[in-house]
Amino acid sequence: MTADPTTDPLAHVRDLFDLDDDVVYLDGNSLGAPPKNVAARVQEVITHQWGRRLIRGWSEGWWEAPERVGDRIGRLIGAAPGQVVVGDSTSVNVFKALMAAVRGTDRAEIVVDAGTFPTDGYLARSVAELTGLELRPADPREPGLSERTAVVLLNHVDYLTGRLLDMAELTARAHEVGAKVVWDLCHSAGVLPIELDALGVDLAVGCTYKFLNGGPGSPSFLYVPTAAQPGFHQPLTGWTGHRAPFAMAPDYVPGPGVSRARVGTPDILSMLALDAALDVWDRVELADVRAKGLALTAHFRALVEDLPGVGVLTPADEWRGHQVSLRHPDAEGIMRRLVDRQVIGDFRPPDVLRFGFAPLYNSFRDAERAAAALRQVL
Amino acid sequence: MTADPTTDPLAHVRDLFDLDDDVVYLDGNSLGAPPKNVAARVQEVITHQWGRRLIRGWSEGWWEAPERVGDRIGRLIGAAPGQVVVGDSTSVNVFKALMAAVRGTDRAEIVVDAGTFPTDGYLARSVAELTGLELRPADPREPGLSERTAVVLLNHVDYLTGRLLDMAELTARAHEVGAKVVWDLCHSAGVLPIELDALGVDLAVGCTYKFLNGGPGSPSFLYVPTAAQPGFHQPLTGWTGHRAPFAMAPDYVPGPGVSRARVGTPDILSMLALDAALDVWDRVELADVRAKGLALTAHFRALVEDLPGVGVLTPADEWRGHQVSLRHPDAEGIMRRLVDRQVIGDFRPPDVLRFGFAPLYNSFRDAERAAAALRQVL
Repeated sequence: MTADPTTDPLAHVRDLFDLDDDVVYLDGNSLGAPPKNVAARVQEVITHQWGRRLIRGWSEGWWEAPERVGDRIGRLIGAAPGQVVVGDSTSVNVFKALMAAVRGTDRAEIVVDAGTFPTDGYLARSVAELTGLELRPADPREPGLSERTAVVLLNHVDYLTGRLLDMAELTARAHEVGAKVVWDLCHSAGVLPIELDALGVDLAVGCTYKFLNGGPGSPSFLYVPTAAQPGFHQPLTGWTGHRAPFAMAPDYVPGPGVSRARVGTPDILSMLALDAALDVWDRVELADVRAKGLALTAHFRALVEDLPGVGVLTPADEWRGHQVSLRHPDAEGIMRRLVDRQVIGDFRPPDVLRFGFAPLYNSFRDAERAAAALRQVL
Repeated sequence: MTADPTTDPLAHVRDLFDLDDDVVYLDGNSLGAPPKNVAARVQEVITHQWGRRLIRGWSEGWWEAPERVGDRIGRLIGAAPGQVVVGDSTSVNVFKALMAAVRGTDRAEIVVDAGTFPTDGYLARSVAELTGLELRPADPREPGLSERTAVVLLNHVDYLTGRLLDMAELTARAHEVGAKVVWDLCHSAGVLPIELDALGVDLAVGCTYKFLNGGPGSPSFLYVPTAAQPGFHQPLTGWTGHRAPFAMAPDYVPGPGVSRARVGTPDILSMLALDAALDVWDRVELADVRAKGLALTAHFRALVEDLPGVGVLTPADEWRGHQVSLRHPDAEGIMRRLVDRQVIGDFRPPDVLRFGFAPLYNSFRDAERAAAALRQVL
């Protein structure tokens, strides 16, 4: 793909987003921009569904929303219907996934990416403490899995560097030694093809407010494949995961299918904002999104990699997600000055500048404007 | 208070709600009606804060929203600022509260109300299993607490019967034997005076989508009093509860104050919808709300208690919340026919009709219309 916007098959998609043209927004890997239809949908949910239907909303689509919206996400991550549920934060879903993965194990350790996004590591530590297992941080490409390993928790795309792991190979290596693998898809869901079912992934979690554009703090998703559902047990035994939630029975009996991964009452405003945001994906092909993401990041990288004092953290080959991370001793000051110029990326301590490229709304022109601003600022 | 609406000091408050006049809505104890200002506020959050400010929203009020909105709820439950945080579901907050309450205990049992709202009992069971403690369901008025008791989890107002427990007496009895008490305020927050600080309550949780009108599935709140904060540790160690969340440090160090009870990224659309909904409380006095709630339920009760086949579950004295629960063998069919007549309460198996009275928007005329409809249906 060239940098010529006339050949960009996704150029028209930007019109579906509510974004100022004078802003170069390169932080969609942290908070996606709002699709235009979200505001009206949420308005309808508040004024009509909640306002007119009141409690009846629960039997008119709200109750099943976690599974219905989950199926829409499933389509983007290679999961057949009935295996993805939306709700809670990513942190809570990491906890559920790990607790379920190690339940009843006779193995000794949980392995986690040594450079993982912190919340994954913190939760893995908690799960290890609760269950008496050992937590071993490891290089995710060479995690040293063995028959001691109960589960390994891996970030598909590294939040800091943008490095993409080989899900097929690492899943197979875990399974060779009888270990389970939990994939964190926070930085990959929606922007590159993922085949959870085909690869036999054990469990996966992900966030919806980055490339899925669900809104600030929108609910997370959890994938539990059909075969694993009967054995999926975790301690957040909230009433909506019960087999008969309205029977108000004194004992917890987990529901059928992926519904047992539900906990409390689903948050409907946020859930249906996300539902609206997902409409964009009905109009695009993931292969196009991936191709454009690689082209955008290659274009930006070529424009900035020789700038003075700048090092590139993101892999140059295709084992990368849709961001370019640069290292510079004054990264924090540089990002502040870029934001003053309406070029919005983010800073991660101590010295990393992250520029996320959302193929649905970022253009090659955005890459050029950002590179030019960075050159000026330096 | 009489049934004469001209003497109702809260009669004007109904105008702040978006409610059809042809509906008699008596299910605000399950899902509160929408305050009129919520729709516009959420619209502003989506189109301006998210749309124009994008990621910058996090440093322009979003990040601190869980504590800021928590303080607003704190005012309604007798908690000084800095002790309430909003986020997650009630189920998740019950888990956090109980895990924190029993951490490091040398005591043997967790006591839970034998007739508790199920999710509380399910979570208490999970906590008991994780920690090796015994779970003992008990009559909440005579829970038989002893020096074996680590913590007792009590529902302030019973979801089924509307019975109100004596928080002062039961908290004192727990403390006499050195046990902690966790209060579930789901059916009382916002409709009756509560004095958590003054009573020395150890921990409390509650939901915001019932009488607080936050919207379907709006986030829950958790109260951790200042003195208990340094010792508050629970296993959902998500990144936003960290002392330095953006340092991305590999080890979890809980944040200062009540912020350590946070877990994942706050859900901003729902959080700020709730924030808007709470504006109503700036205009009312809780004493008036309580007085009207007692008067409304007394009025309705007097009109229906002698109907054939009907038994009243809700206490007749002041130890009741703001609902009237009736028992009838055909409760399910009766509620269906009432809803057909636009009188909306709810049914709880096997034979309970619940009529919730929200003093902010329900009128004495609502009570009369509902009673008349019930008489017709019977």
